[in-house]
Amino acid sequence: MKTKRIFIDPFEDLGFAKVDLHREIRKGFPEVVFAEGKTGHQACAIGKTILKINNKVMFTRVNSKMAVILKKEFKKGLYYNAARIFYVGIKKPVSGLIAVLSAGTADIPIAEEAAITAEIMGSKVLRIYDVGVAGIHRLITFRKRIEKARVLIVIAGMDGVLPSVAGGLFAKPIIAVPTSVGYGLSLKGVTALLTMLNSCAPGIAVVNIDNGFGAGYLACLINQL
Amino acid sequence: MKTKRIFIDPFEDLGFAKVDLHREIRKGFPEVVFAEGKTGHQACAIGKTILKINNKVMFTRVNSKMAVILKKEFKKGLYYNAARIFYVGIKKPVSGLIAVLSAGTADIPIAEEAAITAEIMGSKVLRIYDVGVAGIHRLITFRKRIEKARVLIVIAGMDGVLPSVAGGLFAKPIIAVPTSVGYGLSLKGVTALLTMLNSCAPGIAVVNIDNGFGAGYLACLINQL
Amino acid sequence: MKTKRIFIDPFEDLGFAKVDLHREIRKGFPEVVFAEGKTGHQACAIGKTILKINNKVMFTRVNSKMAVILKKEFKKGLYYNAARIFYVGIKKPVSGLIAVLSAGTADIPIAEEAAITAEIMGSKVLRIYDVGVAGIHRLITFRKRIEKARVLIVIAGMDGVLPSVAGGLFAKPIIAVPTSVGYGLSLKGVTALLTMLNSCAPGIAVVNIDNGFGAGYLACLINQL
Amino acid sequence: MKTKRIFIDPFEDLGFAKVDLHREIRKGFPEVVFAEGKTGHQACAIGKTILKINNKVMFTRVNSKMAVILKKEFKKGLYYNAARIFYVGIKKPVSGLIAVLSAGTADIPIAEEAAITAEIMGSKVLRIYDVGVAGIHRLITFRKRIEKARVLIVIAGMDGVLPSVAGGLFAKPIIAVPTSVGYGLSLKGVTALLTMLNSCAPGIAVVNIDNGFGAGYLACLINQL
Amino acid sequence: MKTKRIFIDPFEDLGFAKVDLHREIRKGFPEVVFAEGKTGHQACAIGKTILKINNKVMFTRVNSKMAVILKKEFKKGLYYNAARIFYVGIKKPVSGLIAVLSAGTADIPIAEEAAITAEIMGSKVLRIYDVGVAGIHRLITFRKRIEKARVLIVIAGMDGVLPSVAGGLFAKPIIAVPTSVGYGLSLKGVTALLTMLNSCAPGIAVVNIDNGFGAGYLACLINQL
Amino acid sequence: MKTKRIFIDPFEDLGFAKVDLHREIRKGFPEVVFAEGKTGHQACAIGKTILKINNKVMFTRVNSKMAVILKKEFKKGLYYNAARIFYVGIKKPVSGLIAVLSAGTADIPIAEEAAITAEIMGSKVLRIYDVGVAGIHRLITFRKRIEKARVLIVIAGMDGVLPSVAGGLFAKPIIAVPTSVGYGLSLKGVTALLTMLNSCAPGIAVVNIDNGFGAGYLACLINQL
Amino acid sequence: MKTKRIFIDPFEDLGFAKVDLHREIRKGFPEVVFAEGKTGHQACAIGKTILKINNKVMFTRVNSKMAVILKKEFKKGLYYNAARIFYVGIKKPVSGLIAVLSAGTADIPIAEEAAITAEIMGSKVLRIYDVGVAGIHRLITFRKRIEKARVLIVIAGMDGVLPSVAGGLFAKPIIAVPTSVGYGLSLKGVTALLTMLNSCAPGIAVVNIDNGFGAGYLACLINQL
Amino acid sequence: MKTKRIFIDPFEDLGFAKVDLHREIRKGFPEVVFAEGKTGHQACAIGKTILKINNKVMFTRVNSKMAVILKKEFKKGLYYNAARIFYVGIKKPVSGLIAVLSAGTADIPIAEEAAITAEIMGSKVLRIYDVGVAGIHRLITFRKRIEKARVLIVIAGMDGVLPSVAGGLFAKPIIAVPTSVGYGLSLKGVTALLTMLNSCAPGIAVVNIDNGFGAGYLACLINQL
Repeated sequence: MKTKRIFIDPFEDLGFAKVDLHREIRKGFPEVVFAEGKTGHQACAIGKTILKINNKVMFTRVNSKMAVILKKEFKKGLYYNAARIFYVGIKKPVSGLIAVLSAGTADIPIAEEAAITAEIMGSKVLRIYDVGVAGIHRLITFRKRIEKARVLIVIAGMDGVLPSVAGGLFAKPIIAVPTSVGYGLSLKGVTALLTMLNSCAPGIAVVNIDNGFGAGYLACLINQL
Repeated sequence: MKTKRIFIDPFEDLGFAKVDLHREIRKGFPEVVFAEGKTGHQACAIGKTILKINNKVMFTRVNSKMAVILKKEFKKGLYYNAARIFYVGIKKPVSGLIAVLSAGTADIPIAEEAAITAEIMGSKVLRIYDVGVAGIHRLITFRKRIEKARVLIVIAGMDGVLPSVAGGLFAKPIIAVPTSVGYGLSLKGVTALLTMLNSCAPGIAVVNIDNGFGAGYLACLINQL
Repeated sequence: MKTKRIFIDPFEDLGFAKVDLHREIRKGFPEVVFAEGKTGHQACAIGKTILKINNKVMFTRVNSKMAVILKKEFKKGLYYNAARIFYVGIKKPVSGLIAVLSAGTADIPIAEEAAITAEIMGSKVLRIYDVGVAGIHRLITFRKRIEKARVLIVIAGMDGVLPSVAGGLFAKPIIAVPTSVGYGLSLKGVTALLTMLNSCAPGIAVVNIDNGFGAGYLACLINQL
Repeated sequence: MKTKRIFIDPFEDLGFAKVDLHREIRKGFPEVVFAEGKTGHQACAIGKTILKINNKVMFTRVNSKMAVILKKEFKKGLYYNAARIFYVGIKKPVSGLIAVLSAGTADIPIAEEAAITAEIMGSKVLRIYDVGVAGIHRLITFRKRIEKARVLIVIAGMDGVLPSVAGGLFAKPIIAVPTSVGYGLSLKGVTALLTMLNSCAPGIAVVNIDNGFGAGYLACLINQL
Repeated sequence: MKTKRIFIDPFEDLGFAKVDLHREIRKGFPEVVFAEGKTGHQACAIGKTILKINNKVMFTRVNSKMAVILKKEFKKGLYYNAARIFYVGIKKPVSGLIAVLSAGTADIPIAEEAAITAEIMGSKVLRIYDVGVAGIHRLITFRKRIEKARVLIVIAGMDGVLPSVAGGLFAKPIIAVPTSVGYGLSLKGVTALLTMLNSCAPGIAVVNIDNGFGAGYLACLINQL
Repeated sequence: MKTKRIFIDPFEDLGFAKVDLHREIRKGFPEVVFAEGKTGHQACAIGKTILKINNKVMFTRVNSKMAVILKKEFKKGLYYNAARIFYVGIKKPVSGLIAVLSAGTADIPIAEEAAITAEIMGSKVLRIYDVGVAGIHRLITFRKRIEKARVLIVIAGMDGVLPSVAGGLFAKPIIAVPTSVGYGLSLKGVTALLTMLNSCAPGIAVVNIDNGFGAGYLACLINQL
Repeated sequence: MKTKRIFIDPFEDLGFAKVDLHREIRKGFPEVVFAEGKTGHQACAIGKTILKINNKVMFTRVNSKMAVILKKEFKKGLYYNAARIFYVGIKKPVSGLIAVLSAGTADIPIAEEAAITAEIMGSKVLRIYDVGVAGIHRLITFRKRIEKARVLIVIAGMDGVLPSVAGGLFAKPIIAVPTSVGYGLSLKGVTALLTMLNSCAPGIAVVNIDNGFGAGYLACLINQL
Repeated sequence: MKTKRIFIDPFEDLGFAKVDLHREIRKGFPEVVFAEGKTGHQACAIGKTILKINNKVMFTRVNSKMAVILKKEFKKGLYYNAARIFYVGIKKPVSGLIAVLSAGTADIPIAEEAAITAEIMGSKVLRIYDVGVAGIHRLITFRKRIEKARVLIVIAGMDGVLPSVAGGLFAKPIIAVPTSVGYGLSLKGVTALLTMLNSCAPGIAVVNIDNGFGAGYLACLINQL
């Protein structure tokens, strides 16, 4: 049985792994590599395979240690550390404006993941961070500027209240992102998610907990309409 | 075995049931009868036992059918139908003001349960209903009037967002009441409860789902300090 | 205490209920009335209040019995029975195309709620029902037609798999709606919701279980960009 | 894209983070800094910003390592290690008495968080620790002393039974705090929380698991009425 | 296929159903019939089969309608309506004393199920009902009498606190029974169950929600040691 | 908008519903109709559509009322009432033996759903019902006969223990079916499901709660290898 | 405020902690010290306080590191490492026999905690380990010996099936202990607990997950009747 | 008490542990050793006991550190590192083909556990990895080859969609394996499990999360029919 030898590293023989190389044609952007839980070796292997027939590759959830490995392999790549994104390639030309709102300081990594994703995929981004409803006047101060955006990404942990309030103020599509920030009954983001799904304000849809990338990606799809 | 004969109605022999007759001395108000799930016969029997040594008795979760039975038994009693409360006795003299805020129309029965409980136990009540955050300007309009209250009871179902927003605006003790109003992932009030427990605004504590009585009772304890 | 008299019907004195009359200005469409759990009397009262300063009103979750009551009050209103929507007013002029996909026959009421909402708010709608992945060729057959839409609403109960598959095929914003269809571990829509939130295909956001209205509303917001 | 450079540390450019500087005016006490999950650098930056226009700042969930960093920055600050609180500023003049009861030895950190918060915000505090119901005579021994308090904070993990028993004995507002103490089905505090929310004794409201700060804060709001 | 004809009633051909006829030899008491969800016809058929080789049969969860049917079939049987038990046969000679404690009025049906089961299986029973901890003096009043029992069955819904308190007072084996009594977060008995499993007082074990029969059965096994 | 007229009955225009007509070619058996929640009219319409190009159609979860409607439409159909299955068509020739084991009397409807499905799809079926582990000798009695089967379907509610015991005794593929039979913490089948998924005996896989049809279908797929 | 100085170690001033010193009189055995999460210093302090007026003290969940500390302090104490128990004092004279059964190898630490507790408190113990139902003949082999015991403690993780099977074989009181052994859907012992609570065999009660001490304690209470 | 000495290592005296030595006769394959959580010493001891009367032994969840220990003890054993399996003995002669499909790269360890188990127990295995539905064309490409298999094992984390799609395409028995791969609401595999149990495509049964071994074992039982 030869199998044993082959699987020293599951990626030694990439005949087994079928990277979705034609996704750019089908979906407008190549397969994105979720780096968490992969070795640097694995991430590089997949990245190189994608670059064979695409002119760009994006990695998410890249910690600083893996960033060093990726930078070594992909000299032209840039690391956005607050967003934990590593990107190789040029950015799309900029289309309309997306506003990224976050409730607390601890939500910033997810907010940046959304913002940088949106910028890479060709949107202009307005960042309004730390405007949680415990001090709701902070949000209202920025009202005029936010109304210039075409799509809103609203990020909150704990009670997840911010998207409901934003939904009451703005007539824009809102993508809500619950974060795993909190303790006790924040339930690692489940409470924020439930709040957002039950929002009484219409015009809101929700992505998975901590899925800043997904929110940024969807916001760009909408922005490019 | 005589037991069988005795238990045709569990209340036939009240030697078995030990109504807490001295609670007024210990807690300042006699035992309150939770009527839901009891027969009219049972409710009357307990009510009469309490009235033997107290000058008042209060029933909660009284539907219209039971109200008729209670009215027949306790001629001087009054039925507050929106609150589903039946009360026999005089009210306490009025002390300071409690504000009862509710997010939606469907939350009114619980809001009234809280309000009437508070009034019976000697508080003045300001009702501000239907001021959910989907139209947050409605809450802000009443800001001045609400600030006159000593304690706030804030009631909401669905996303349960209203107490968080109120907590950001007012420096008052807030008792939050989640309601079972909603559908899908409102989870019969659990979502609202979780939102309230995770509120980023300080000064909020929470009672059980739909427990308007408990909120009104606690608000009065605070109000009488 | 006058309160008791007032609350025979919580809506007798509308001073208590604060309908959000200016939402059309703020959000582009007046407050929508969720009819489930309201009496015909209540629904009519709210409807009339809204029509005082808006030229339209929409009711959702309207069963056939309430539809008769509303039709009597609002002669010009129309009842969309599969969608359980009652609407008074003219429709917005039609903008771009939205595709509504549903997995099973039992999902059609929610699909229609989404579709009619979108039509009322000014979108053209393509309906593709009963294309669940147990027979995936059915979806692929309609691929060309679906690609003409600007936004996709994808509806599924049980395993909730359809949005993931659609997300792999189309480079469009997808609003996924889990339905409470199923038995056993479908958990009244929670399983479908979880599947959708964890979709490996990017470009998907999710609304509450059975929230066809919310999906239609959001799709129109996007469509009007 | 300049973003990358800016986000080496999310707090380098505080234009992004909007500390709620005017909370003291609105709520009577400045924004409190939840230190868990923040770096010492971040905590110091926020603390200094708050001190620019307030004369005090309070940090919660401060471990001993961060305490050293904060002490270096804020020379006049004091560290309450059992409570994990670091406070810069003078205390409010003392008003009425709050009693803090805890069920077990392991609940003391949360009990101290509540007690120190209350002392800082101007209450006198009576500590009665380790009086769980497994030896209920211990609680009864202290009955007279507890009755002198205006508000009770009752803290318990595991079965969370203590607030129910206290609620049966005292006619005072009770703020119950579930703790994450326990194993197996204590579910990290959820069991204690559920017990407290379902208490048959009236006059009890509940805060989030381990939220000693919230309980102390609310007790002071009540105490100052 | 003959199957179809056979299954008009699943019990027509008892060759399929294998009543455990020899359980009395193995376990000391014959198989007990859980009547809920069975038709009168089914219950009678099983009862008669058991009586063929045992001199007794016990049915639990018997509503009044089924009681009439069983009485018609088994003339010598007795119906204990508060306990919802129907029993045919003589009782075992009485051994030691079991005390059955319940917290509230609504717990009495389960308490009686436990008490009657214990009496039928040969125990003497002391009933102490309605001694919940909201008025803990009621329990202490009965302390002397309870201490004469060899085993305690302690029954409570809502917060499920009574067994913890009893466990702190008595050095006896305690079988705790959570009931589905309550609303909101009582979660149909789950909260009471969790409280009991986490009791800080040793000497307590728990049976399923509403399982009065199981508690009575186990108490007798212990009592007969 | 013509839509409204079309949707008086969602099946009036079957252009919308895309019955999977070619499933027999792809999967070996035509689409099966889940009748629960459908009207008789809808069920008949789908049935007729399937029969246009297949020579058989099977309905599951058919109650007696719908059975009458189906019998009127499909004269040659047979109703298996214990299994709640209505079948039009001839059965496949019989291949090897499947044993269907069930733990309790209340599990028989699901057991029959599995058994009849298997018989219709061409398997011979041995039924061994009511052999729960409370009397484990009953199972051991049938050991020889069960060992003649090629595949085992093992059905249990409540504690769901039977498949684990069967898995310890027989070297056969086992399909375990949890049923929603039980009360309290049986959690409508979730407990039985969890038990089965965690079985320490290897060779067991599980289908959805109450999914007798799914088990019968899969057992036949295996049996035909 | 002196508080700060006092709380360097919460146990420095034991005036705050109220060890339940008179439990031996009330409950027949002194308070037992749950060592997990305590420092060696804390454990020693509590132990010495208890020994001041009792002639024995027992510590549970003692890891090897703490055992060394305790041994240094309490020279006459013995450490039972498989059971993680440290005990100072003489054992009670031996009464009747308790059988401790466990399903798997990984359950042995909990089984030993139960067994040693029972031995210390005066029972004779028969250990039958590793007799899970995947090989049910192993249990049946020991049937005769197990029948000599007065009480059974049955311990299992994963599917938690063993108590159900034992309950079908033996007419003895059974205390079931779920363990947190397993992976995936064993849910850290919740699955085993649910199985045990739903057992179809009567005569079983359940303690908290991994609570070997509680089971041993209760078994001794029963054994001493 | 001699117990203490004996339990320095629970396996010192194997008289306590009853390895199921005759399972090969009963089940066709000896007891398999789940190595996770065991010490190397324990694993070796059990392995040697099994080898005394069987000619093979298999260990699962073997990390590289334990592999070294096992290799030292069992010189002829082979370690399959991607599968974390250590096997001593010869393989069964090869029977029919099993296809193992996995959705993502991160699912490969579980996929390999299934594949190697199946190969050891005598099946030929076709591996098709990384064919998740985000790029569904990848699966369709392999359709012909997959149809040659007799049984399918389909492995997926996150949304768990792959088995539903495979079930729509292939008329084969499918064993679905959810993996704990994912983040946020993947709930460590629970979401994938729920999706699989609710699959609308018939012919699918499910094993525990990450239970690659169980799937491989069952597939072989089926394959050998």
